[in-house]
Amino acid sequence: MARAALPRYHVHFESNSRKPRAFQVHESDVKAAVRRHPELAKRLKITVGFDRTMLAQALQSADFMLNSEPPREGLRAMAPKLKWIQTTGAGIDGLLPLDWLPEGVTLTNNSGAHRAKAQDSGAMGVLMLNALIPAVMTAQREKHWHHLFSSPIAGKTALVLGYGDVGAAVGRGARRLGVKVIAVTRSGRPVAGADEVVPVAKLARVIGRADFVIVATPLTPQTHNLLDAAMLDRMKDGAGLMNIGRAPVVDYDALRERLISGKLSGAVLDVFSPEPLPAESPLWTTPNLMVLPHITCDDPRYIEYLLDFWFENFERFLAGKKFRNIVDPVRGY
Amino acid sequence: MARAALPRYHVHFESNSRKPRAFQVHESDVKAAVRRHPELAKRLKITVGFDRTMLAQALQSADFMLNSEPPREGLRAMAPKLKWIQTTGAGIDGLLPLDWLPEGVTLTNNSGAHRAKAQDSGAMGVLMLNALIPAVMTAQREKHWHHLFSSPIAGKTALVLGYGDVGAAVGRGARRLGVKVIAVTRSGRPVAGADEVVPVAKLARVIGRADFVIVATPLTPQTHNLLDAAMLDRMKDGAGLMNIGRAPVVDYDALRERLISGKLSGAVLDVFSPEPLPAESPLWTTPNLMVLPHITCDDPRYIEYLLDFWFENFERFLAGKKFRNIVDPVRGY
Repeated sequence: MARAALPRYHVHFESNSRKPRAFQVHESDVKAAVRRHPELAKRLKITVGFDRTMLAQALQSADFMLNSEPPREGLRAMAPKLKWIQTTGAGIDGLLPLDWLPEGVTLTNNSGAHRAKAQDSGAMGVLMLNALIPAVMTAQREKHWHHLFSSPIAGKTALVLGYGDVGAAVGRGARRLGVKVIAVTRSGRPVAGADEVVPVAKLARVIGRADFVIVATPLTPQTHNLLDAAMLDRMKDGAGLMNIGRAPVVDYDALRERLISGKLSGAVLDVFSPEPLPAESPLWTTPNLMVLPHITCDDPRYIEYLLDFWFENFERFLAGKKFRNIVDPVRGY
Repeated sequence: MARAALPRYHVHFESNSRKPRAFQVHESDVKAAVRRHPELAKRLKITVGFDRTMLAQALQSADFMLNSEPPREGLRAMAPKLKWIQTTGAGIDGLLPLDWLPEGVTLTNNSGAHRAKAQDSGAMGVLMLNALIPAVMTAQREKHWHHLFSSPIAGKTALVLGYGDVGAAVGRGARRLGVKVIAVTRSGRPVAGADEVVPVAKLARVIGRADFVIVATPLTPQTHNLLDAAMLDRMKDGAGLMNIGRAPVVDYDALRERLISGKLSGAVLDVFSPEPLPAESPLWTTPNLMVLPHITCDDPRYIEYLLDFWFENFERFLAGKKFRNIVDPVRGY
């Protein structure tokens, strides 16, 4: 049969056992994925490893690698046949700059897997900020009945910083509630699903119009510390902030001061540096601040979606099509 | 002019200064309402009082009274001309049974003023329960990074107990997120805006299908302790509960046990007995329980809406039409 003569490819799925289980690829996950994609699986030799114990050996013959922390030094020598690296997550800021990526190796990320949860989290975030739930939770810690009123959310304005997969999903979640969404992007070119698009260069001019600011950008040299003290001061008095992008985009010390002073009414933070947030961090007890443990975009079926996405991309490879979710080495996402 | 000959009516607006400001009718609120309804106001003599200091005197000539705590004993003798009592809130359980209501006096409540906020709160409640925010907030109190995953909300099921104005608004908020809504009502007759309607007599049979149970009933002898320990045990393992109706509908001691054991994953409570919740209540520190200080249905513009509603009903009275929001003395809402 002709099929038997088709070349087989070697893919190595590498995980870090110190990461949460939901981000680890186990043999059982791979077997389930193979059952979902039996024809494609026939074209593969699959190895599964943890904590680099067998990584060097696997890379000697691997065509593809799934790995959020690929070895960088001398990668081409270690992996002479490597053509494609898929990361487990959407954010690849830990791998920047991409000068280590060998020529001929494509890097793809898992952007898109977060969509449904990000939409839920965007809606939940603006509703909680509008209802002053961060302040209500601070009052609960103090056993204090703090009767805080808030008006309905419809007609208010959210500014979403970063309108990639996560940002656009957040925007969809907010717009369903009748919230007006200003998307802030690199270029400011029109995007679907926003009431208004503004280039990041004009952020300082528009941030004061928002009742809620939601950070959903990747971390790049351009977004690092973008919401510094001066930018936070330009926010509307009593506005709320949510960060589901990356912690270093916002100056958390400056944010704390503005939550304590009442300049801002509340914050919902889902990202920290480092994570887990250390017990000694003052953020745990900052008034009007909710600490979420990096959960707003994750789903218990995350690895299932990731492997389905991988098989879909492998099918594109076999068909000679371009991979989906290729990371631009210059932009960094 | 003919208009000068039209009869004028006396309305007395009575408030309790111990209630939150948002539920008090002040002279300034009345003046603003008169500016919004100048023609109707010409037909009125208006008095405004607090804490019953001038109530007896006002009632001697009052045709109408706005008052959430009307005097009951000997009311007809005190208020010989009284035709209509409007309450400030939607719930009138504090006035039941209505055997004190003189013949010829209509009681109306403020049901409906809560709609927009209740819709927001319904959406927020199911999103927070789905994302396990009550457990996340308990972890924050302990400075504990508790990496809790949850799947997207679309396709899950909410049971809304009570489908009056507040319950239906809650249901609308949940359905917008792709949540399936089972409405539980007295009769089980079809209602708009629910995927399924079930009579309360069959609650025990359906409660186990819900990922989220939201209590939005008035308090009546029929709803008192409806969610007792046995009913809570029939809920799905890991389900969440929200109460924005009345506290005595749910056995909070039994609920606490089930939050501590993990039978239920979280609770969002907005109503307590008494309110404010005393500092010594164990509810403040119960794990996986969010204490909201009776805020889910309220709006800073509450009195504005209430007075507009009152003027609208007064216009109906002048036109010989039936009042809106008449409380049924038998049903109690």
